[in-house]
Amino acid sequence: MLGRTYEGQNCSAARALEVVGERWTLLLLRDSLLRGLTRFGEFQASLGVAKNVLSARLDLLVREGLLTRRRYSEHPDHHEYLPTEKGYDLLPAIVALTRWGDRWAAPNGPPAVFTHAACDNEITQALYCPSCGRPLAAHEVRPKPGPGFARADP
Amino acid sequence: MLGRTYEGQNCSAARALEVVGERWTLLLLRDSLLRGLTRFGEFQASLGVAKNVLSARLDLLVREGLLTRRRYSEHPDHHEYLPTEKGYDLLPAIVALTRWGDRWAAPNGPPAVFTHAACDNEITQALYCPSCGRPLAAHEVRPKPGPGFARADP
Repeated sequence: MLGRTYEGQNCSAARALEVVGERWTLLLLRDSLLRGLTRFGEFQASLGVAKNVLSARLDLLVREGLLTRRRYSEHPDHHEYLPTEKGYDLLPAIVALTRWGDRWAAPNGPPAVFTHAACDNEITQALYCPSCGRPLAAHEVRPKPGPGFARADP
Repeated sequence: MLGRTYEGQNCSAARALEVVGERWTLLLLRDSLLRGLTRFGEFQASLGVAKNVLSARLDLLVREGLLTRRRYSEHPDHHEYLPTEKGYDLLPAIVALTRWGDRWAAPNGPPAVFTHAACDNEITQALYCPSCGRPLAAHEVRPKPGPGFARADP
């Protein structure tokens, strides 16, 4: 069982990190969402992580509903792991982290670029203001209390 | 010294996680970028984290160039921590994680919403294709090798 050490924080970023902040979890999702890997051995080969750690992370992601586990062979008993909508919904966060790494930590240029499957052109990710109809720089963004502000979970 | 346990991965998401994947680091940046906190005591009060952990995380972010440390008082000797461009550039990742938490882990609704400071309207974040001129769903995105693909760091 994971320690929920962010539990005093009434913050959706903190709640996201409770699920995906464990080491290897986001890279496992990257492999699932972007590389189409589904099997234990494929994840192990891609990540080079200890089997017990990989097993614990897969179990966490299934328990939290980001992956589903499906039997693909009965003799021998084998399973594969497929992303759910909740898992797919982390793609923007993975893209954003990747873009930061491309910009600040990729001395040889981006190892991978993201493209629109239908037209093969590179995609963009942006913060923008629908009212003003334009993309925003980071310093133009402000947080303000939302509907869940006053009602912190116990 | 942090173990760079993702070092076999030629991947910008992995490199980003080497810097920001430590517990508390992204929440510390959230407080810096979005709440305008600058002082040790302010971060401590916000996060409720042990002082030695907070100190180590601030040092990491300064060493990696995401925050700068500036003396604001000589007697007594006090410093504050201000975000750099490299730090600000993580805002899209923080917004993306927050939106995921809002959608999947905020039973009372979003604790905070992001607005455009100039007009006070809520902002959007999207993946989109500049060629097709439309936002994309996660399953429409594909990775392909970029300029740094073949040249993995040693």
